[in-house]
Amino acid sequence: MLEDLKQKVLEANLELVEKNLVIYTWGNVSGIDREKGLIVIKPSGVDYDKLKAEDMVVVDLKGNVVEGKLKPSSDTPTHVVLYNAFKEIGGVVHTHSEWATSFAQAGLSIPAFGTTHADYFYGEIPCTRPMTAEEINGQYEKETGNVIVETFKDVDPLFVSGVVVNEHGPFSWGTSPEDAVYHAVVMEQVAKMAFNTINLKGNREPMDKVLLDKHFLRKHGKNAYYGQ
Amino acid sequence: MLEDLKQKVLEANLELVEKNLVIYTWGNVSGIDREKGLIVIKPSGVDYDKLKAEDMVVVDLKGNVVEGKLKPSSDTPTHVVLYNAFKEIGGVVHTHSEWATSFAQAGLSIPAFGTTHADYFYGEIPCTRPMTAEEINGQYEKETGNVIVETFKDVDPLFVSGVVVNEHGPFSWGTSPEDAVYHAVVMEQVAKMAFNTINLKGNREPMDKVLLDKHFLRKHGKNAYYGQ
Amino acid sequence: MLEDLKQKVLEANLELVEKNLVIYTWGNVSGIDREKGLIVIKPSGVDYDKLKAEDMVVVDLKGNVVEGKLKPSSDTPTHVVLYNAFKEIGGVVHTHSEWATSFAQAGLSIPAFGTTHADYFYGEIPCTRPMTAEEINGQYEKETGNVIVETFKDVDPLFVSGVVVNEHGPFSWGTSPEDAVYHAVVMEQVAKMAFNTINLKGNREPMDKVLLDKHFLRKHGKNAYYGQ
Amino acid sequence: MLEDLKQKVLEANLELVEKNLVIYTWGNVSGIDREKGLIVIKPSGVDYDKLKAEDMVVVDLKGNVVEGKLKPSSDTPTHVVLYNAFKEIGGVVHTHSEWATSFAQAGLSIPAFGTTHADYFYGEIPCTRPMTAEEINGQYEKETGNVIVETFKDVDPLFVSGVVVNEHGPFSWGTSPEDAVYHAVVMEQVAKMAFNTINLKGNREPMDKVLLDKHFLRKHGKNAYYGQ
Repeated sequence: MLEDLKQKVLEANLELVEKNLVIYTWGNVSGIDREKGLIVIKPSGVDYDKLKAEDMVVVDLKGNVVEGKLKPSSDTPTHVVLYNAFKEIGGVVHTHSEWATSFAQAGLSIPAFGTTHADYFYGEIPCTRPMTAEEINGQYEKETGNVIVETFKDVDPLFVSGVVVNEHGPFSWGTSPEDAVYHAVVMEQVAKMAFNTINLKGNREPMDKVLLDKHFLRKHGKNAYYGQ
Repeated sequence: MLEDLKQKVLEANLELVEKNLVIYTWGNVSGIDREKGLIVIKPSGVDYDKLKAEDMVVVDLKGNVVEGKLKPSSDTPTHVVLYNAFKEIGGVVHTHSEWATSFAQAGLSIPAFGTTHADYFYGEIPCTRPMTAEEINGQYEKETGNVIVETFKDVDPLFVSGVVVNEHGPFSWGTSPEDAVYHAVVMEQVAKMAFNTINLKGNREPMDKVLLDKHFLRKHGKNAYYGQ
Repeated sequence: MLEDLKQKVLEANLELVEKNLVIYTWGNVSGIDREKGLIVIKPSGVDYDKLKAEDMVVVDLKGNVVEGKLKPSSDTPTHVVLYNAFKEIGGVVHTHSEWATSFAQAGLSIPAFGTTHADYFYGEIPCTRPMTAEEINGQYEKETGNVIVETFKDVDPLFVSGVVVNEHGPFSWGTSPEDAVYHAVVMEQVAKMAFNTINLKGNREPMDKVLLDKHFLRKHGKNAYYGQ
Repeated sequence: MLEDLKQKVLEANLELVEKNLVIYTWGNVSGIDREKGLIVIKPSGVDYDKLKAEDMVVVDLKGNVVEGKLKPSSDTPTHVVLYNAFKEIGGVVHTHSEWATSFAQAGLSIPAFGTTHADYFYGEIPCTRPMTAEEINGQYEKETGNVIVETFKDVDPLFVSGVVVNEHGPFSWGTSPEDAVYHAVVMEQVAKMAFNTINLKGNREPMDKVLLDKHFLRKHGKNAYYGQ
C-alpha cells in the first residue's frame, strides 16, 4: 500500500539527518496521496538509522491509522490539520533545528532580509501566537495545527511554506515530502543569516518590497524563469 | 568484575567524543551498580582513542579504589558525592562542552525557553553558587559535588538531570551512563539555542509553565505517551 | 571549444561546494578567455554533483550564447558586465555564503579589521547602494553588475576583489576562476571574523593604515615577498 | 640533519589543519634543538597536503638559513625572537584561527573566565599593544616578536603560553612543537567560550583568583596531580 510514497517519506526523513536538521528522533516528515486521501508518516520514537519504508504508518485525513504495526509520530494530529487546511500541499516537516527553533523560542518571526529568503519565502516566516492553557491541556497536537492555520488566514501557504511555533520550533511544507524538507533546510539557513543580520544591525528594516517581489516571482508562479 | 558496566561506561565515554562534547581528555563518564554499591569510572588522563573496557576503574561509595591498574578520573570525588545524594541515578557525566560551559562561565542558569528544553528538563538547568576559598582549597572535587547537591535541595534530580558549575562547566546524570550522556548532549543543544534566544530577545521570559508541564510530563512520569 | 577553461570552471564550481560556500545550486563561477573574448559559465539549475565540463555554457561579451545545450546561469548578465568593466579579471564567483550574505543583508561593508583581511583585500569590502525599483524591474541581473561597477568607480578591482550586493550576497573575482573562488573563501572567513570583532567591540575602528599597507603590499604588487 | 625534529615539526604543522586552525597556508609551526641552537620551521607558501619532513628549513638563532632548499616561513624572524627571549620553550605556533584572531582584531585580551582556561593559562591571554609605524615599516616580523616579548615582561611565558597580536592573530608556544599546537587548540577553544561568555554577560568579571590558582597549579608545577 502506497509503497512509492512510503519510500519517499522514508528518504525525506533521512534527508533531515543528512542536512543536520535533527539529532536523535527530533523530527518527522509525512507525505499525502491526495487522490486516496491517505497520509504516510514516520513512526514514533524509532531511530533514524533503523527506519525502513515498511515502518511508515498510513493514516487517513481524520488521523485514524489505516495501516502500520507501529504508532504514528505523536505529531500526527498537527500534520493532519495542515493537510486538511492547506489543500495544495503534499508534504509536511517538523524539526527542532537550531536556528529556526531559536526564533520560535524568542517568539519572533524570521524577517525577510535578503534575496536568499525572497527566493523561497514571500515575506517573513511568521511566528504563531502563544497557545492558551486550554489549547495546551486539550488536544494539544491538533491545536498546534490549528494555531498554525490561524496564522495563515491572510497568507498563502504556498507562498510562505513554513512557520515557527511559539516556544516550540519550525514546521514546513511543500508540494511533496522532498519539497517540504527543502523548505526546512532553507528556513534554517535564512534563520541563521537573519540572526546574524539582526546582530549586525539591530534596527534593520525588512527588505525592499520590490526586490522581494522580483526574487520570489522569478522563481514561483507562471512568470518564473530563474535557475542558478 | 562488572564487565558489562565497564563496557557501558567505555561506550558512554566514547559517545562524548562522537557527539563533539569533548576534545582531548576533557570529560568523564561513570556508572554505578546499585546492588553492589560500586562505581565504574574512566581512568585519569588516558586518550579516548586508546581507552579499553579493562582500563575502567572500580571505586566504592566512599571513593576508595576497589579494582583497576590506573588512577580513577580526578573528578571521581564529585561523582561519588552525586551517587550518594541522588539515590536513583545510574550514571554521571562531566564535560567542558562549549555552550553549557559558556553559561557556567557567565554564572548563569540555562533558562527553559521552549519545548526542546521542556521535553527533557523540568525548568531551568541551574548554575551553582560560586565556591568559597575554603571549599576550593579544601577537598575541592568533593566540594564541587556538595555545591551541586546544595543547588538541588528543592529540585528533583530526575526532573532536572543536569547543572552548570559556576566558572567551571556542566555535569549531567541519568538512569544509566548512556542516559547521562544523552542529557549532556541535550543540555548542550538547549544551551546553544538559549544563547541564541537571549541574543535575539534579551528580556525573554522563561517559557509558559503550562507548556513546560505539558511537554515534560508527556515524556516523563506515569502519563508519558510521547515519541517523535 | 575552450575545453581547458571549461574544466577549470567546472572545478572552480565544485570547489565552492567543497569549501561549504554553497548548498543546492546557490552559486556560480565563470571564467573568461580574454583573447577570444568568450566567457564559460555554469549552466542554470543543474545539481553540483551532476555537473560535467561539457555542460558549461559559452557566451560572448554581449551575453549571447555561443555554445551549449543548457541555459547559462541566470546571473550571467552580471558576470558579463563585470568582465566588460574590469578588464584584468579572469574569473567571477557568486554565492550566498552565510557570513558575507549576512553583511549584505545588513547593508554593511565588511571592515578591514586585521592582517587576515589585509593580506587579500586592500581596505573594506564594500556594500553596494540599494538598487532602485527601476533597476530591479528592468534588466535586473545586468543592473546588479552595473551597481557593482558603480561601487568601484574609485576602487581598483584587483586591490579589492569582492563586494557584497545590498540585501543580496557576495560576488568576488580574480585573475582566474580558481583565484576568484579563493577570494570568495577568504571573504567568507574575514566576514565571520569581522562579525565577531564587531560583537566584541562595537565601536572598533578599521585597522591601522600602515599595517594595511604593509600586509597587502607584501603580498601584492611588485614588492611582494611573503608566503607563510 | 635533525631528522627527528623535522618529523615532529611536520606533524605539528599537519595537526593545525586536522584541528581546523588553518586553511590554505595560514599558519606555521617551528621547533628548536636547544643543544645545537637550531630551529626547524615550515617552508614558506607550500600547501599542507604536499609538505614533507625534508621540506622543513633549518635556521640558527640569528635567523640565518643553515639547511633547506626552500625559503623558511616569512614569520621566521618572529619565531627567532621568541626562542631567544623565552629560553625554556621548544616550539612556536602561529595561526589565523577564527576566535583568537577575532580577539586580536578587537584589540582585546582573552579573559580567564573559567576552569577550562585556568587548566592551561594562568590568567588572561594578553593582547599586544598596537605596533608603531616605525616597527611596521622596519623589520616588521622581527618587531612582531619584540612586541610579544615586551608584553611578557611581567608574565612567565610558561604560565601563559600564548598571546594575540593586535590586529593580527595568535601565537602560542610550549615545551615542544606538539605542546605549542596543543596550546593553540586550547586558546581557540577558550577564546570561543570567552566570546560567548561576554555575549551572555557583558560585564562579567574574570574568574575567582583562588579557583584560577587551584586549577592551574593542580596541572602545572611540582604539585600537579590532575588528569581527567
